[in-house]
Amino acid sequence: MIKKRIYFDHAATTPLLPEVRQFLSETMESMYGNPSSTHAEGRASRSFIEEHRKNIATILNCSTSELYFTSCGTESNNFVLKSAVSSMGIKRIISTRIEHSCNMQTFDWLHKHKQTNIEYLKVDDKGRIDLNQLETLLKSNGTPTLVSLMQVNNEIGSCIDIQEVGSLSKQYGALYHSDTVQGIGFAKYDLKNTNVDFISGSAHKFYAPKGSGFVYINHQQKPEPFIHGGAQERNVRAGTENLLGIGAMSFALKLCYDTYEERMSKLETLKAHFKQRLSTEFPNLEYNTPSENSSPKILNVQFPSFEGSELLPLMLDIEGLSISGGSACTSGAEKASHVISEIRHDHKGKAIRFSFAHFNTLDETDQVIEILKKCLSGKI
Amino acid sequence: MIKKRIYFDHAATTPLLPEVRQFLSETMESMYGNPSSTHAEGRASRSFIEEHRKNIATILNCSTSELYFTSCGTESNNFVLKSAVSSMGIKRIISTRIEHSCNMQTFDWLHKHKQTNIEYLKVDDKGRIDLNQLETLLKSNGTPTLVSLMQVNNEIGSCIDIQEVGSLSKQYGALYHSDTVQGIGFAKYDLKNTNVDFISGSAHKFYAPKGSGFVYINHQQKPEPFIHGGAQERNVRAGTENLLGIGAMSFALKLCYDTYEERMSKLETLKAHFKQRLSTEFPNLEYNTPSENSSPKILNVQFPSFEGSELLPLMLDIEGLSISGGSACTSGAEKASHVISEIRHDHKGKAIRFSFAHFNTLDETDQVIEILKKCLSGKI
Repeated sequence: MIKKRIYFDHAATTPLLPEVRQFLSETMESMYGNPSSTHAEGRASRSFIEEHRKNIATILNCSTSELYFTSCGTESNNFVLKSAVSSMGIKRIISTRIEHSCNMQTFDWLHKHKQTNIEYLKVDDKGRIDLNQLETLLKSNGTPTLVSLMQVNNEIGSCIDIQEVGSLSKQYGALYHSDTVQGIGFAKYDLKNTNVDFISGSAHKFYAPKGSGFVYINHQQKPEPFIHGGAQERNVRAGTENLLGIGAMSFALKLCYDTYEERMSKLETLKAHFKQRLSTEFPNLEYNTPSENSSPKILNVQFPSFEGSELLPLMLDIEGLSISGGSACTSGAEKASHVISEIRHDHKGKAIRFSFAHFNTLDETDQVIEILKKCLSGKI
Repeated sequence: MIKKRIYFDHAATTPLLPEVRQFLSETMESMYGNPSSTHAEGRASRSFIEEHRKNIATILNCSTSELYFTSCGTESNNFVLKSAVSSMGIKRIISTRIEHSCNMQTFDWLHKHKQTNIEYLKVDDKGRIDLNQLETLLKSNGTPTLVSLMQVNNEIGSCIDIQEVGSLSKQYGALYHSDTVQGIGFAKYDLKNTNVDFISGSAHKFYAPKGSGFVYINHQQKPEPFIHGGAQERNVRAGTENLLGIGAMSFALKLCYDTYEERMSKLETLKAHFKQRLSTEFPNLEYNTPSENSSPKILNVQFPSFEGSELLPLMLDIEGLSISGGSACTSGAEKASHVISEIRHDHKGKAIRFSFAHFNTLDETDQVIEILKKCLSGKI
């Protein structure tokens, strides 16, 4: 009998929910007009897109005119960061060294090509910032500033309160961008009542297909075009819209929020049970994820160093367990995580990110404990 | 009985072929790993993408390392045009005023923000360029030059020979970009033996979903990143890959070329029959599409001016016929076509683009004649 694999890498990407597959199957038969065409098929597609935009706007409590569809979270973040510098007068960005690589690399590019000054906040051993340091930097000079701090760290799951950071940013006249890719579907938003100027979402993190994302841009900010051409997305993101992707993203998001409490409760139960079992079976593990204010879907565990500990992800994979031993957003071989390097200075051992979905089971977490026992036997 | 609508707007976008829907249904159940993950699910996705890249490279006769996946044809064209200026030293672009708006608007942006000199070739009343004028411009000065001339005009269907333009460009040391969005699937390519540096493709023009495209960049040219972040697409187009979109694009393209002769023959028959019937029934029509060297799927017809002729697309829509009366790649209301304005100086009458798929029928073309008779009765 072939044992079913266990997939604990939902922060990297998620499978489509059966309901989302059903939605896609139905939609791809009936909906194909170009939303820019004026005939019946085109108008049907236009309505479809705008209804789904309205759906997402309702969930996030923002205006439809503040939502722009993109091809992914990475595009969303590139778009707003570059636009903030090119069309909103930003000359300085305050961030951390544990942001997602799409933000880090865009900072580097803006520094090199657009003379943007980048300042990094310290983070502690759980990836937490010090709001006092942020305030000190914000009040230190009057350069037009953007604060860019992700809501949920994709590797270790530590969260910041976007309301708190947003209010502080606003108090000192700074704009605030939060990469919320790991938060969308897993945290509630009330954008009309939150001082955040830009947030981003990626469909494949919440059970919809890869290839769709969105960005929220507060109505007070006017972005410049990221892709030139047609008038799609209010003239700033040309290209025929990804009809199926947008529909499925919106449909999946509604599913996520319709079942929010139940899903979050399941995730919390799974994570607590797994952590409790890990702590009992392997008392010398450390946890890179903070106990409080962290995503219920992410637990990042630091395994002690042993001979071959770098190969632990491969050993687990062979045993049928999929996890992440580095950032997934790099091609080919896993790179040492820039996040772990930043929060741990000992460079010892191996960090493994376990990330759950609500349909994972307690039995799966118990099986993972057995797999770990087998792989680590006599080693730690 | 409700009459089935007739969709003659396949140059704007196409429905998914049943085989493509089937492919998507199967793939979306089984394939979901992040191609950047190193575990089994991730490796399966990576193989899937690279196999499909190989498939497209084989069809176009180029190297897999010359193909980059994007979210659409518009992104592909933005990417290469901006990259040619920012990282390949281009300071001058030679093009026409009948290119797709994604190229035209990028030219304008490059002119305004990057001091790129844009020179426009004349076109005749069928959208044809004069190669002698191109040669004169190419030899006129030694500024690093990019020639950007689309292969198949999306509105009137006139074609240029990319081999001929490419050889001339090369002779004078210029790079050559061709927007081939309307050609891919409807013309054969042999890129290893063609002097073209950049071509672009868009999945939804050949029966695959919206939201996927690709760009070919000759291995001698090194683009700079268009979207910063992960190492996807050899570090120049970050963002988790659109797995389903890429697979379906490749699958549909193979279908198109496996049935190429049969499909092209059907399109030619449809177009010839339709044009012959139009000419017989309405002898005072003019044709914006040239009789020779035009796409078999496009026939652009100039209807004489009559009271309300601007509303002809709407009248046809009400009768159940979908066509284009302007460029589809604009949102909301149809704008007057920049292509028709450029090739016709009389500003009289209404241009209608009819564009076919191989599964359209002669009976449909005959029904369209009846619809036109009804709408135009006593008017022209």
